[in-house]
Amino acid sequence: MTRPGQGRPPRRTTRPTLGLGPVALPAVVAFGGGHGLSASLSALRRVTDRLTAIVTVADDGGSSGRLRDELNCLPPGDLRMALAALCGDDESGRTWADVLQFRFPGEGDLAGHAIGNLLIAGLWERLGDPIAGLDMVARLLGAEGRVLPMAAVPLGIVAEVIGLDPRAPDEVSTVHGQAQVAKTTAEVRAVHLVPSDPPACPESIQAVQEADWVVLGPGSWFTSVIPHLLVPELADAICTTPARRLLTLNLEPAGETAGFTAARHVELLAEHAPDLRLDAVLADQRFASDDPHLAAWATSLGAELVVADLGVRDGSPRHDHLRLASAYAEIMGV
Amino acid sequence: MTRPGQGRPPRRTTRPTLGLGPVALPAVVAFGGGHGLSASLSALRRVTDRLTAIVTVADDGGSSGRLRDELNCLPPGDLRMALAALCGDDESGRTWADVLQFRFPGEGDLAGHAIGNLLIAGLWERLGDPIAGLDMVARLLGAEGRVLPMAAVPLGIVAEVIGLDPRAPDEVSTVHGQAQVAKTTAEVRAVHLVPSDPPACPESIQAVQEADWVVLGPGSWFTSVIPHLLVPELADAICTTPARRLLTLNLEPAGETAGFTAARHVELLAEHAPDLRLDAVLADQRFASDDPHLAAWATSLGAELVVADLGVRDGSPRHDHLRLASAYAEIMGV
Repeated sequence: MTRPGQGRPPRRTTRPTLGLGPVALPAVVAFGGGHGLSASLSALRRVTDRLTAIVTVADDGGSSGRLRDELNCLPPGDLRMALAALCGDDESGRTWADVLQFRFPGEGDLAGHAIGNLLIAGLWERLGDPIAGLDMVARLLGAEGRVLPMAAVPLGIVAEVIGLDPRAPDEVSTVHGQAQVAKTTAEVRAVHLVPSDPPACPESIQAVQEADWVVLGPGSWFTSVIPHLLVPELADAICTTPARRLLTLNLEPAGETAGFTAARHVELLAEHAPDLRLDAVLADQRFASDDPHLAAWATSLGAELVVADLGVRDGSPRHDHLRLASAYAEIMGV
Repeated sequence: MTRPGQGRPPRRTTRPTLGLGPVALPAVVAFGGGHGLSASLSALRRVTDRLTAIVTVADDGGSSGRLRDELNCLPPGDLRMALAALCGDDESGRTWADVLQFRFPGEGDLAGHAIGNLLIAGLWERLGDPIAGLDMVARLLGAEGRVLPMAAVPLGIVAEVIGLDPRAPDEVSTVHGQAQVAKTTAEVRAVHLVPSDPPACPESIQAVQEADWVVLGPGSWFTSVIPHLLVPELADAICTTPARRLLTLNLEPAGETAGFTAARHVELLAEHAPDLRLDAVLADQRFASDDPHLAAWATSLGAELVVADLGVRDGSPRHDHLRLASAYAEIMGV
């Protein structure tokens, strides 16, 4: 890991350290949705025991989309994945996480629904309180951390794209819905939320205000990372919290940002949240080394660029949980 | 409560009693399905902490029927109700029981499904082991007892009836399926299982063999009480266990046995299980007092007739849990 000024040596205990008194682990809030957030949480849970996940609620595809259509509820899928990533480190926690992630097979009414999605949606129907329902599933899993939604209502995503019609490659058009945005072959320029000023979740705002670190990314850039910065009250909390702010880039440009440089990923955040300042940008060695402009973009937002090997050892584009945890620990001085 | 020879005074502790040594509470197995079993369990949990429910698996209607059709699983509904009746006596247990009993509203794919049915069916799909799935839900609920199925495969019920066609009131015909049998207006004479020799659940057989008391009824006579006596291996265990056998009659004849006398209820058990002997028949004062033949029928099966006020105080035909518990405790000498 190449970084000017090494952090303090690893300290990962809340118990008193001889002669140094108790060491408090940092309160960390991780933003995202889906697999990127799951990777981030799997790393962060190794760094701190004070962890909150704040999760996008704009998914309109698959099991979540069907539940949202039927029950007019928040889409539970990304929340479920975050909860599973925080499951208790014992047989009960792991078994329940595995069960909640499991999807019904076949072709019937239940086919494709993750069990956890049905349970979460059912808890919401019964309790009428999304936070209480998520907290119950967290207790069921013995979760090491809390999972909260980024907004109190289900959201839509609309993307401005160019090149949707190959015959008019420069024409700007719109793509509606997270599922469509995530798979569009057009180049996404910007995203908006519908409604544009949704109510935030008070518990999420409070967690951001009380955090020591907030962590954006990795994840699908337009549908999982940027949306948090489009909920006005949440964006304001992210931009004004006394916490330090860390942005973790994806290992490589893919999906919604296929072909984008690392610097362009940072630039997109700045375009969507002009007030955003960062303390650190964490990038994988290979992705960062391809982009001479990344450091400058990080600096322009106030951030130190931290570069490390973060991928799994087989070379596939997935974060290695321990490598990512190690980088987080060093950046946070844990 | 009128009964020759009062039982021992109440003793409801497993802790050592001064001078008497530890008093073990009886191991009780309760058979049934649906609301009758739920009432029985709600009473028995006040009498003992060694409780096993063995539940019918022939339901083919409603949420259970749909899940059975879609997933070819055991019908979970009656199992879910039994688990909820045994929920831990704390906020977590009661809240989870309430949630698992809750049914999705509306008109969509999930409408009418109890959340607990979906969770149990999902656990079965994932784990491939009905007992392991039920035990996981029991732990989730902090259940005070175990819930097991009466057979290892989903079953059908076929009833022999007379009077199905009002123009031929003496003609014998058949009604197929528990849901149809439960609501037929014809007079049911006998029921059979399909398949007729299903594999029993080994854990259920073991529980019967190790019990101090087995309790049949109350409940829908043809679809919840008698079916246990039609699974050959289970019927054999019930008839040969060293446990004492108690039959609890319904408060009044209703539904499948509308118009039947109390004695006819006992007679029906004898017809379906000729080897069955009983130690006690428990009947409500009002139902018993209408039937001069009940005591003789009980005696013919080896049973003492115990009569008590068992209904709720508002007079509606539901067992009062504490009155039923009191009767159970006295009969079992707890």
